[in-house]
Amino acid sequence: MDRQNLGMLTDFYEITMANGYFKSGLCDKITYFDVFFRTVPDGGGFAIAAGLEQVVKYIKELHFTKEDIDYLRGKGLFDQEFLNYLADFRFTGDIYAVPEGTPVFPHEPILTVRAPAIQAQIIETYILLCINHQSLIATKANRIVRSAQGRVVLEFGARRAQGADGAVIGARAAYIGGCAGTSCVLCDQLFGVPAGGTMAHSWVQMFDSEYEAFKTYCQIYPHGAILLVDTYNTLKSGVPNAIQVFKEVLLPQGINDFAIRLDSGDISYLSKKARRMLDDAGLQCCKIVASNSLDEYLIRDLMMQGAQIDTFGVGERLITAASTPVFGGVYKLAAVEDNSGNIIPKIKISENTAKITNPHFKKLYRYYDNESGKALADELCVWDETVDTSAPRTIFDPEAIWKTKTLTNFTARELQIPIFKNGQCVYSLPALKDIQSYCAQQIETLWDEVKRFENPHTYYVDLSKRLWDVKNKLLAEAKGVN
Amino acid sequence: MDRQNLGMLTDFYEITMANGYFKSGLCDKITYFDVFFRTVPDGGGFAIAAGLEQVVKYIKELHFTKEDIDYLRGKGLFDQEFLNYLADFRFTGDIYAVPEGTPVFPHEPILTVRAPAIQAQIIETYILLCINHQSLIATKANRIVRSAQGRVVLEFGARRAQGADGAVIGARAAYIGGCAGTSCVLCDQLFGVPAGGTMAHSWVQMFDSEYEAFKTYCQIYPHGAILLVDTYNTLKSGVPNAIQVFKEVLLPQGINDFAIRLDSGDISYLSKKARRMLDDAGLQCCKIVASNSLDEYLIRDLMMQGAQIDTFGVGERLITAASTPVFGGVYKLAAVEDNSGNIIPKIKISENTAKITNPHFKKLYRYYDNESGKALADELCVWDETVDTSAPRTIFDPEAIWKTKTLTNFTARELQIPIFKNGQCVYSLPALKDIQSYCAQQIETLWDEVKRFENPHTYYVDLSKRLWDVKNKLLAEAKGVN
Repeated sequence: MDRQNLGMLTDFYEITMANGYFKSGLCDKITYFDVFFRTVPDGGGFAIAAGLEQVVKYIKELHFTKEDIDYLRGKGLFDQEFLNYLADFRFTGDIYAVPEGTPVFPHEPILTVRAPAIQAQIIETYILLCINHQSLIATKANRIVRSAQGRVVLEFGARRAQGADGAVIGARAAYIGGCAGTSCVLCDQLFGVPAGGTMAHSWVQMFDSEYEAFKTYCQIYPHGAILLVDTYNTLKSGVPNAIQVFKEVLLPQGINDFAIRLDSGDISYLSKKARRMLDDAGLQCCKIVASNSLDEYLIRDLMMQGAQIDTFGVGERLITAASTPVFGGVYKLAAVEDNSGNIIPKIKISENTAKITNPHFKKLYRYYDNESGKALADELCVWDETVDTSAPRTIFDPEAIWKTKTLTNFTARELQIPIFKNGQCVYSLPALKDIQSYCAQQIETLWDEVKRFENPHTYYVDLSKRLWDVKNKLLAEAKGVN
Repeated sequence: MDRQNLGMLTDFYEITMANGYFKSGLCDKITYFDVFFRTVPDGGGFAIAAGLEQVVKYIKELHFTKEDIDYLRGKGLFDQEFLNYLADFRFTGDIYAVPEGTPVFPHEPILTVRAPAIQAQIIETYILLCINHQSLIATKANRIVRSAQGRVVLEFGARRAQGADGAVIGARAAYIGGCAGTSCVLCDQLFGVPAGGTMAHSWVQMFDSEYEAFKTYCQIYPHGAILLVDTYNTLKSGVPNAIQVFKEVLLPQGINDFAIRLDSGDISYLSKKARRMLDDAGLQCCKIVASNSLDEYLIRDLMMQGAQIDTFGVGERLITAASTPVFGGVYKLAAVEDNSGNIIPKIKISENTAKITNPHFKKLYRYYDNESGKALADELCVWDETVDTSAPRTIFDPEAIWKTKTLTNFTARELQIPIFKNGQCVYSLPALKDIQSYCAQQIETLWDEVKRFENPHTYYVDLSKRLWDVKNKLLAEAKGVN
C-alpha cells in the first residue's frame, strides 16, 4: 500500500462512534484507553512489547485528506460539521507506553491513550494492529532465539508473510526479539536489519552441474558464500562438490568464511554427517546453516540431538508466528474525565472473570531485586500513587488476596513512559539495535521459571491496595446499577 | 509502508543470484518458473487463487530508484555494470496465471513467469508473498462462508491482522472468498469492499446507562443500527434495553432494519434466548449478529445447534487464517531456453516424492462434464499440446498410472491466461465484485466430496502422457548424472 497516512486504516465503527460522540456533545470528553492482552501466545510466560515506533509515526502523520472526507461524505451517514472536524484533525492527546523490547505480562497496560473520545476511538484500530502484530512476532522470534541457545537465528520468511508489511515490519520485530538478520532487503534498507542470503535451488539448476554452479558462485562471491547442498543429493553430491570448490577456489586465497546450507531431509542426521565430511576434509572453519520449516520446538529437538548447526534460517513459522498467529491485544476504556477534570474510573464487566478490566488511569511498576537484579513482580497502581522503595512493600495477588509477598531491598521502575503530550511527541525513538540489546538485557532479568516453554511460572502482576479497592467498588456498583 | 514501488521487497539472495547471472553470462538466459503449492491449508480439498491484481500492479511499477541503487552499492558486493542494469530495470517477460477466484489444486501452476533469469529471480519473493497471502485468506474465508450456509459473513479482523497490508489486502481476499463486507474503512475506500460496523463497548460505557447509549445511537443512526448488547449483561440488560429503544425510537418511524450483536458468552444459548425475547416483543424483523473468535468450525457447530444468527462477524481467525496461517506456495524453475529458443525442461529432484517438480512449460486444462457442468479433472500438458474434446480422452493418475478414467462429452478450459507479454500487461483486471461472483460460480462446479472439511476427495490433477514421459525421462537422467 502506498499511503503514508493511514487515517483510514480504521474500523468503520470508530468513525460511526466518533460522529456519534460529536453529535451527542461528547466531542471533547477526555477518555483513557489501555492496550493490554490477556494470554501469552504459545502458552509462554511473557510477551515482548513491540510496534511503538510505527505507532509514533502513524500519530505524527495522522490526518484526513480531501479524498478521505469525500469518500466518507459519500456514505451519507456523517454530519458535515463532523467531516469539517476530520478535515482539521490532528491528535492532541497524550500517549504513554512501555518501550519496545520490554517483556510484558497479561493485563498490563502496554500503551495508554488519554485523549478526547473521538480521537481515542479513531486511532484504536491502527494502534492495536501495530502493537499486536509486532509484539506477536517479537515474542515468537525470542522463543526461537532462546531455543537456539546462542546459535545464530536468521529471519527468512518474506515469501510466506501475510502481506508486505507482514514481511518487512515483521522482520523488524523479529530483530527486536533477537534474530541476527533477515533475508528481506527492504527491511535492511528501511530499518537497518542486516540482510543476507546467497542462493536458491534455481541457481544450481541453471548450470550444467552442481560443481560448476558452486564454483561460479565462489568465484563471484569469495567471502561469506553459503552453498545450498540439497538440490540433487546432499551427502553424495552437494557436500562433496562444496568441499571440492571450497578447496579449489577459496582456501588457496586464504578465505575461510564459508558455509553450506541444508534445506531438506533429516537435518539432524545430515548435519552430523556433513560436519564429519567437512572436518575430514580439513574444513573445520566451514559453518552449517539449516533451514526448512523450523520453529522453536524443532530447533530445541535438533539441539537435543546434537545436530551440528551453526545458524538457523527460520521462515514461515516465525514470520506468521504459525503456532499461535494472533496476539490478542485489546483497547479498553479505563477512565473518563468529568467537566472539572476529575478522573472517573470505568470498568468493563464480564461473566468471565479474566475479561473484567482493570479500571482507572494507572502506573505500571516493575520491582527488581537489588541483589540478584531479577524482576520480582509488577504492580499496577493508581496514577498518583508513588512507591517508597526505602521501606518494605507488601504486595498481594488480586485474585487471591491472602497470597502476599513482602519486598525488601528492591528497586522500582516505572515501565510506561510519556510518548506524546498534548499531541507533541516527547519521545526519542531509540535505534533498533539498542532496542534489541535492551530486550535481551531485560529478558536476563526474568527467572528461568518464567522463560521455560512448558508450564512457565506465572509472573506476579499485582494491584496496589488502592487500585484493588477502586476495582472492587466499581464491581459492586455495577451489580447494583444494571 | 509508504512505497509504491516494491522492487526492494525481495530476498537478498535474489539480488546476489541476479548479479551472479549477470557476471556469468546468464543475464539474458530465458527461464520458466511456476508458482504452485503442495498442500491445501486446513486439510481442505481445494484452495482459491488470489493476489494477481497486486502482482500486476507490482510488475507495472517495478523499478529501482537512485536510493535503492546507492543502498545496494553500499553492500560492496555488486558490480557497477549490474547496478547500471538495475537502474534501467523493467520487466520484459511474460506472465501467465489463473484468474483470481479460481479453485486450484496442489501441484498446479497458479502463475508462470517466462523471463530472463535475472528478472524472474528478482520478482520471485513479492509474487510469492502476494499469491501466498491472498490465496491463504480467500481460501480460509471461503471455508467460513460455506460453513455459514448462506448466512452473511463479515470480515472484522483489522486489529489482529499481521500488518497494515494484512488488514487491507486481507479483507480484499476475504471478499473474493465470499465475505459480504469488512470492518476496514481503507479496504472499502481502496477496493470497494463494503465497510460496516456500529459500536464498541466503549460507546456503551461513555453514557450514564446502556439505555441512554442505545437510544442516542438509534437517534443518530436510525437505519441499520446494530446494538452491542453484552457490555453489562446480555439477557438481563442488553436485550431488554435494545428492545425498548427499538420500540421507542425506530418502530414509530416505520424503521425495521436493525439488529443486536452478541460478542461474548454462549452464543448458541444467548442467540436462541434473545431471538425469543425479540419475537415476543414483536421484533421479528430484528436481526442477530454474532462475533467473538469465530471460525468455520465454531460456525458449523452453531448452525448444528440451531443458533439464531443472521450474520457472523469473523475477526482474528479469518484475517490470519489462524488454524493454518501459511500458504506454502513455491516458485520453481520448470524450464530454460537454449540459444536457439528451444525449451529445455528442468526438474527439481527430492528424496520426498511429493517435492519433485513437474518440469516444462505447461498448459493447465480443466475438464467439465457437459451434462452436470461439474469439474471432472485437471490435466497438465506440455505447452504445445492441444486437447481434442470431440473424442473421448483417457487420463491417468501420475502416481499410479494404472488408474485411468475416460472422459466423454466434456469441455476443456485452459485455466492459465496471458497476463503480461514482453513486459506489457495484456490483461484487463476484472472488478472485485466480478471476481467474487466468478469464485462462487466456479466453486459450484466442484462436487460436494471435494468441498467437505473432513477427508475431502482428492481432485484429479493428472499429467498428459507426453508430460509424464518428459518427467520420467528427466528423473532417470538425474539418477545418472549426479
